Amino acid sequence: MANAALVSCSLNLLSGSRSCSKPSSRLTPSASVSLQVSQSPFRKIHLNGDKRLRKYHTVYAMAVSMGQETRAQPGSGSGHSSNEASSPKKVMVIGGDGYCGWATSLHLSNKNYEVAVVDNLVRRSFDHQLGLDSLTPIASIHNRIRRWKSLTGKDIGLYVGDICDFEFLSEAFKSFEPDAVVHFGEQRSAPYSMIDRSRAVYTQHNNVIGTLNVLFAIKEFGEDCHLVKLGTMGEYGTPNIDIEEGFITITHNGRTDTLPYPKQASSFYHLSKVHDSHNIAFTCKAWGIRATDLNQGVVYGVKTEETAMHEELYNRLDYDAVFGTALNRFCVQAAVGHPLTVYGKGGQTRGYLDIRDTVQCIELAIANPAQRGEFRVFNQFTEQFSVNELAALVTKAGKKLGLDVRTVSVPNPRVEAEEHYYNAKHTKLAELGLKPHLLSDSLLDSLLNFAVQYKDRVDSRQIMPSVSWRKIGAKPKTVPA
Amino acid sequence: MANAALVSCSLNLLSGSRSCSKPSSRLTPSASVSLQVSQSPFRKIHLNGDKRLRKYHTVYAMAVSMGQETRAQPGSGSGHSSNEASSPKKVMVIGGDGYCGWATSLHLSNKNYEVAVVDNLVRRSFDHQLGLDSLTPIASIHNRIRRWKSLTGKDIGLYVGDICDFEFLSEAFKSFEPDAVVHFGEQRSAPYSMIDRSRAVYTQHNNVIGTLNVLFAIKEFGEDCHLVKLGTMGEYGTPNIDIEEGFITITHNGRTDTLPYPKQASSFYHLSKVHDSHNIAFTCKAWGIRATDLNQGVVYGVKTEETAMHEELYNRLDYDAVFGTALNRFCVQAAVGHPLTVYGKGGQTRGYLDIRDTVQCIELAIANPAQRGEFRVFNQFTEQFSVNELAALVTKAGKKLGLDVRTVSVPNPRVEAEEHYYNAKHTKLAELGLKPHLLSDSLLDSLLNFAVQYKDRVDSRQIMPSVSWRKIGAKPKTVPA
Repeated sequence: MANAALVSCSLNLLSGSRSCSKPSSRLTPSASVSLQVSQSPFRKIHLNGDKRLRKYHTVYAMAVSMGQETRAQPGSGSGHSSNEASSPKKVMVIGGDGYCGWATSLHLSNKNYEVAVVDNLVRRSFDHQLGLDSLTPIASIHNRIRRWKSLTGKDIGLYVGDICDFEFLSEAFKSFEPDAVVHFGEQRSAPYSMIDRSRAVYTQHNNVIGTLNVLFAIKEFGEDCHLVKLGTMGEYGTPNIDIEEGFITITHNGRTDTLPYPKQASSFYHLSKVHDSHNIAFTCKAWGIRATDLNQGVVYGVKTEETAMHEELYNRLDYDAVFGTALNRFCVQAAVGHPLTVYGKGGQTRGYLDIRDTVQCIELAIANPAQRGEFRVFNQFTEQFSVNELAALVTKAGKKLGLDVRTVSVPNPRVEAEEHYYNAKHTKLAELGLKPHLLSDSLLDSLLNFAVQYKDRVDSRQIMPSVSWRKIGAKPKTVPA
Repeated sequence: MANAALVSCSLNLLSGSRSCSKPSSRLTPSASVSLQVSQSPFRKIHLNGDKRLRKYHTVYAMAVSMGQETRAQPGSGSGHSSNEASSPKKVMVIGGDGYCGWATSLHLSNKNYEVAVVDNLVRRSFDHQLGLDSLTPIASIHNRIRRWKSLTGKDIGLYVGDICDFEFLSEAFKSFEPDAVVHFGEQRSAPYSMIDRSRAVYTQHNNVIGTLNVLFAIKEFGEDCHLVKLGTMGEYGTPNIDIEEGFITITHNGRTDTLPYPKQASSFYHLSKVHDSHNIAFTCKAWGIRATDLNQGVVYGVKTEETAMHEELYNRLDYDAVFGTALNRFCVQAAVGHPLTVYGKGGQTRGYLDIRDTVQCIELAIANPAQRGEFRVFNQFTEQFSVNELAALVTKAGKKLGLDVRTVSVPNPRVEAEEHYYNAKHTKLAELGLKPHLLSDSLLDSLLNFAVQYKDRVDSRQIMPSVSWRKIGAKPKTVPA
């Protein structure tokens, strides 16, 4: 019988040893942090790239600001003290212009980490290509960073380029010398990966090769750098047994081993994350990379403490059928009087979390880094809901605001179980100190009000699903005008 | 407790049902095969491509020959009768110019399958790039196919191009209309994938994207086509429990499910096969692809019934540290008086098989195709050996031939357990009728004599390992002249 008691176990793939350590042993405190203060408080942004990176559109804003000395030390927001000299300070956020990435970059900067965003801004291009747009108007990454500086005095570095281009990534690594890399820089939509062959191939190429390059960059330029990689709960699929955090102990024919939890991903996007997980685990073993794979659930919400500070810091909110995720989509649908689109029977159950918990989890992972050679997997969500449960919650919250919320079942464009067992563990981040923002009436009210505020920006043609898992073809798919 | 009784079970991912069928239910007999006989017995080979494929170096030799009517029907060599109208006849062998692919192409042609080779011939380029060469002189693919035609009257089609180029692959599919695709067309060396970053990336890109393209080609141009994909036993790694064939039934916290067997691959090459397996399993479920994943062990030997017919049909035999595999390498080392190079402690245990069984297994898989939506995994090997056991066998056989065989332990260039439990199931192909050629004194004598015959062609500088799993760097590795 397989053993469920895995919540605080991890495999050290370098030494082959397994440790079941208590959270307290992972603290990486740092009492004194030496600050690097530049002579120039704000280095000029080079929109056409500096000499080393002439061929890229590269911007490097000064990464350490004045005025940090009076603030809390890095990691202080996690509930742990910070005394260890090796505590991470410089964090490279790959994909730092995206939904989770931007919120994370601001949060880490606010917590006095030295942050550099690495992004090729392709997420904005997807909107252009498909005729989509965020519900919220979002400022350019340059204006976002400038506004952050003007409000807080804090600098965020910016490298604009493609991590699949190793020359670019190498220069960014050598220049910034990160202590931790948070890797959000992947094509992150399952429907996008199922539009047509070229987008399926793009998704797997971009995600797998990008991550390989990050691993090689860490090995080459900073072996001690901690990789914090965004995976997805979708890597596990919907098995008929409890989902553990990354590993499961199996007793079979009288012998026992702790092995990677079996993967059953259900889109080319989700599969790309499975591939990443296997590649990363191997490099932890072979090279001693330290890595945390965060199998994140579905993120909802739009505001964090930092993004709410100014309109130019607002985060994107996707409601379309390609990039929008369940709860956010439902709130926008409710705001514009569109029936909530439940795919199939609506029994699909997944893990969910508030974006304020996403940024908290990333900080906890950075503040409590994996050991050299350790491949650590955390399930990053706070609650489970079925699609029907979410629809009911939004319906109830909408009625309180006077909205007439209806639900419609639409043919499921995906290939997935619509009624299934689902029980996924998620204790490791709680053990590190996560204080979850559980889904509440007030969050739903706030999100619905936010959606109502911007409802004139909604393009109703983008709400119904148009990408079919079964009908995906090899030929490029026409995008309707 | 996990259940080991999985040997004849398979998952139908399309319907979600599981079947535990007896081998007899998978027979695909065909009593009458209608032959297509061209007006011209041997269409001219177009070395510069025909009109449809002008931009590729494409050769399409007529794929059905005269003289087949008097021979046995396809599948007759498998021990099963052939009566079903849907029995595969046209087999596309991707990578048909390689070690396993060439032997398979000839074997299937000999068994009256209509065979087309699809190959970009890059394996020959690797030799040029790295300064390597096969122990045996090998003819060009064009001369190989011409010689086969002149000896047997049988045509083998040839499409020269890269399956990562979907335009090329599409045209090959539409032109040949295969009933089955045997996919050997991957970079297949673990050390090659560990030379440097660019070769690691090449391996994963080439293998993963090539297989994605094959899946899309099947969906687009022949949904009923059976994919026979070469995986590797290395996908499983060396777990401390018995290795099942593809799936394992796990009972955990009182619930039970049959899930993909956990994967622990140990090179970027092996990982690429893990990625393929996950991608293929998904398309079986989402699109109803029929697929057989053959997790092959280490192949040894050089002669098959067909390749032994003429020197121009001889197969390649790799003895170098990049492409050479354990037993073949040891025989060549013994022939030239080089100590047998055991990596580390030599307790590394793997599954092995004779190349005559490789071609037999492929034929069995084709003759007994997977069902629509079925993702079927066979462990394709016949015996387990440790490296030390192989060295002892070669030493003993060499002494009989008067060779002074010594063994040396060299530092292990890989990251792998050197002493470990290993017990892998391999009953599914036996149930389909595999009659194994177990490793025998006569095979070792034959292989050693073959190596002695060609020993003047051995470049001793290629014997010692030069690729290190731990030292792989991001920079392109220098190839010594």
